[in-house]
Amino acid sequence: MIAVAAPIANVIEAFSRLPGIGPKSAARLAFYLLRAPEEEATALADAIRELKERTIFCSRCFNLAEGDPCAICASEERDRSILCVVEEPSDVLAIERTREFRGLYHVLHGAISPVDGIGPEQLKVGELLARLQVEPVQELLLATNPNLEGEATAMYLARLLGPLGMRITRLAHGLPVGGDLEYADEVTLGRSLAGRREMV
Amino acid sequence: MIAVAAPIANVIEAFSRLPGIGPKSAARLAFYLLRAPEEEATALADAIRELKERTIFCSRCFNLAEGDPCAICASEERDRSILCVVEEPSDVLAIERTREFRGLYHVLHGAISPVDGIGPEQLKVGELLARLQVEPVQELLLATNPNLEGEATAMYLARLLGPLGMRITRLAHGLPVGGDLEYADEVTLGRSLAGRREMV
Repeated sequence: MIAVAAPIANVIEAFSRLPGIGPKSAARLAFYLLRAPEEEATALADAIRELKERTIFCSRCFNLAEGDPCAICASEERDRSILCVVEEPSDVLAIERTREFRGLYHVLHGAISPVDGIGPEQLKVGELLARLQVEPVQELLLATNPNLEGEATAMYLARLLGPLGMRITRLAHGLPVGGDLEYADEVTLGRSLAGRREMV
Repeated sequence: MIAVAAPIANVIEAFSRLPGIGPKSAARLAFYLLRAPEEEATALADAIRELKERTIFCSRCFNLAEGDPCAICASEERDRSILCVVEEPSDVLAIERTREFRGLYHVLHGAISPVDGIGPEQLKVGELLARLQVEPVQELLLATNPNLEGEATAMYLARLLGPLGMRITRLAHGLPVGGDLEYADEVTLGRSLAGRREMV
């Protein structure tokens, strides 16, 4: 048994459970909080405690939200003619960070994955169909992940929703900005060649 | 302004303040906690809240502790003939993790650093001297950091406490285990040569 005071051991253990934080990082965080002002530790504890209590799902887009409808669905400033379909709430945050998209979202809460027994009925697909019938859009941007499950989900949705007559788009594949051509995998480089664009 | 629900934004911001956690890692941790069982988030929040409330300094060794004297100072199983002097409570944890040391500790709470205006009087040096007079030891292991301040502190303590007549030792310098000789810095490699040991 390693002799460390229980309150410190508890924090180290709790931090160690988080993804990407090993025992050494957890210890560093615990000792940092011990030296930090009381308010900082309290703010972190309160924020974590209130995270689930104060977070609900928006009944329109199924993103995590404080109110229903969420701030994005309720906003007058968003473009209601384009709807971006993502797998998870964290994807909404990632897209919002780009500041390149001003439309609305629909969160599926997963992707189709037959091996994991996840079909369209486990996702918010029925809700998406119902929503599009009540609030039609001009463009449906399928922003599921660029992996097997995400592509399968995008294909399924494109086929299911194509008959509704709107434009259906997918995020572009290509080289990451700041990346090195030499180190790009062949599939990405291939997609980047196929999707090449005119410079002028 | 990026549209993310306030409870989530609060957690992301609070995590981002911690050392080594950037905004993306903070977001990942927030979404992880949202998906994790309620108990896991509550356990983390409680542990952080209780960290400072339930932690005090041991009046003998000045390590962080739950009670006074701390578990190490109070333990019958520790070797009272050797005292290890460290800069910070986190150093005690690092040494305890090795399971190679069974003596007692003394935490200085810093190192001598004239440029930062830190002299022996800002550290628990007077307390160390008083402690050694009441509870003499056979060996004093100076385990301050192997940097400028740590070396200066060790030199100062060796000169100050030498007259008390005990053995005064310092942690060995050398190559890190699993390290690569080719990549070792010259000073470390030099110390490792000077400190070479008989193999049989």
